[in-house]
Amino acid sequence: MFYIIGLGLADEKDVTVRGLEAIKKCSRVYLEAYTSILMVQKERLEAFYGKEVILADRDTVETQSDEILHKADIEDVCLLVVGDPFGATTHTDIILRARALKIPTRVIHNASIMNAVGASGLQLYNFGQTVSLVFFTETWKPDSFYDRIKENADLGLHTLVLLDIKVKEQSDENLARGRKIYEPPRYMSIPLAVSQLVEIESSRSTGILDAEKTLAIALSRVGGGDEHQRIVSGTLRELLDHPADAYGEPLHSLVIVGKRLHHLEVDYAQEFAINRDNWRAVAKDVYGCALD
Amino acid sequence: MFYIIGLGLADEKDVTVRGLEAIKKCSRVYLEAYTSILMVQKERLEAFYGKEVILADRDTVETQSDEILHKADIEDVCLLVVGDPFGATTHTDIILRARALKIPTRVIHNASIMNAVGASGLQLYNFGQTVSLVFFTETWKPDSFYDRIKENADLGLHTLVLLDIKVKEQSDENLARGRKIYEPPRYMSIPLAVSQLVEIESSRSTGILDAEKTLAIALSRVGGGDEHQRIVSGTLRELLDHPADAYGEPLHSLVIVGKRLHHLEVDYAQEFAINRDNWRAVAKDVYGCALD
Repeated sequence: MFYIIGLGLADEKDVTVRGLEAIKKCSRVYLEAYTSILMVQKERLEAFYGKEVILADRDTVETQSDEILHKADIEDVCLLVVGDPFGATTHTDIILRARALKIPTRVIHNASIMNAVGASGLQLYNFGQTVSLVFFTETWKPDSFYDRIKENADLGLHTLVLLDIKVKEQSDENLARGRKIYEPPRYMSIPLAVSQLVEIESSRSTGILDAEKTLAIALSRVGGGDEHQRIVSGTLRELLDHPADAYGEPLHSLVIVGKRLHHLEVDYAQEFAINRDNWRAVAKDVYGCALD
Repeated sequence: MFYIIGLGLADEKDVTVRGLEAIKKCSRVYLEAYTSILMVQKERLEAFYGKEVILADRDTVETQSDEILHKADIEDVCLLVVGDPFGATTHTDIILRARALKIPTRVIHNASIMNAVGASGLQLYNFGQTVSLVFFTETWKPDSFYDRIKENADLGLHTLVLLDIKVKEQSDENLARGRKIYEPPRYMSIPLAVSQLVEIESSRSTGILDAEKTLAIALSRVGGGDEHQRIVSGTLRELLDHPADAYGEPLHSLVIVGKRLHHLEVDYAQEFAINRDNWRAVAKDVYGCALD
């Protein structure tokens, strides 16, 4: 059997009982280590499982999946994925490959940021499509996310923005020379993300990401408990000016609040506000929320 | 500490290790038993946890939450929720109440249908807002879901449709007479859901839910393994004409496929198709997917 097992959001204890039982049966345990990160290192997972964990990079999962699937028709093998197995495209690829090889497959689900974002107090029903925001460079500033956020905003819906991470990336020079030397991992911070949003707003000028009139909620390490989880709400301007280290450790996500905002959502998220009075004032005056 | 703990989708083993540890510490364990159901009975949970589980109906969670929160400032108490704690409004209410009482709260996340719907092979990025579909009666056919599906469809996005369940409902007569006698639980079937969609389409006539030209995917007991999980894909007409028992046991959900359909999504979900040739033909001819 080939298992794809979601590890959930925070650490080794977020695996489900069913997932842990499956891991303990497996002769090989791979950990997908490029689309997201857990708060813990591989060694802590190994200690918890009592067995070796093999890191699987993008190449292995996407183009060399037969290595992972080797003998999975007669042995139990698993691929561990941070969050839920269906957060990223690549895991449907490997399941399709397993199907083609007639290897039985079982998916073990878990929380992902796509549903845990409810921790912000915003209703999941009121979210539109999710977007990703990549690191801009001097010459490459892909801005199709703006159209997606605008589509959501025009319907009054919230948008979950997933922030880029760079793991096991090569510098241009090392890539050109074919040297397998990798840069340290980089995680997009909330202020950088907001600055990129505001930069595109300044050229598009539709007002959907106006820094003073747009509410947003930043999330970090959702599910990590009070000692790790950080949720911060405010206008884009407030989030931009807030110290980067106040947002906690990566990964970070950001929600752009839509106009279909409900007063209970405002009440809940004001707990996380940089400035409660301004949070409520913008919700009332700009978003038209029925507040006292 | 007051814990709200997601139980995930299928049975007692879908709780996380962190969640199980918390349950074992609690002096009282409540199970929210009206917005969703697990595949297992309370007794099986009690055997697994080694302690009593108290069923909490809507009244208890929504209007008598102080009973649940009693002494949670000095003891550990938990409320178990099928799926993830933030799937339904009511759980933010009880957290707000706990905050007001200065009771420390911890949320333990888990999978919910909002992310596990990825098991259909459709990309979570391509979903718009989620809608709920309630049982129609002769005189009450609320159809605002249609506007929401149309908003998504106009953007080419998929829509997750959550089907109504009726648990601990009273008949009109028993309600009028104040008798606390409850009807057996009812779960909306896929054919009934599709018939309601098609009924509203026939009056609205925008074509977004045309029975022959709209693809959809029905899901049941996602995460329950091959012996329980059912995923069935086809046109609305095919789903309507398919025998109700082919969809497995409740709960059921339905996805209306949007036009931004990717050929890999078509490939993945054809495994579940009632008629593979027609699945691909509609994807190609109506949806404009680039297929062979």
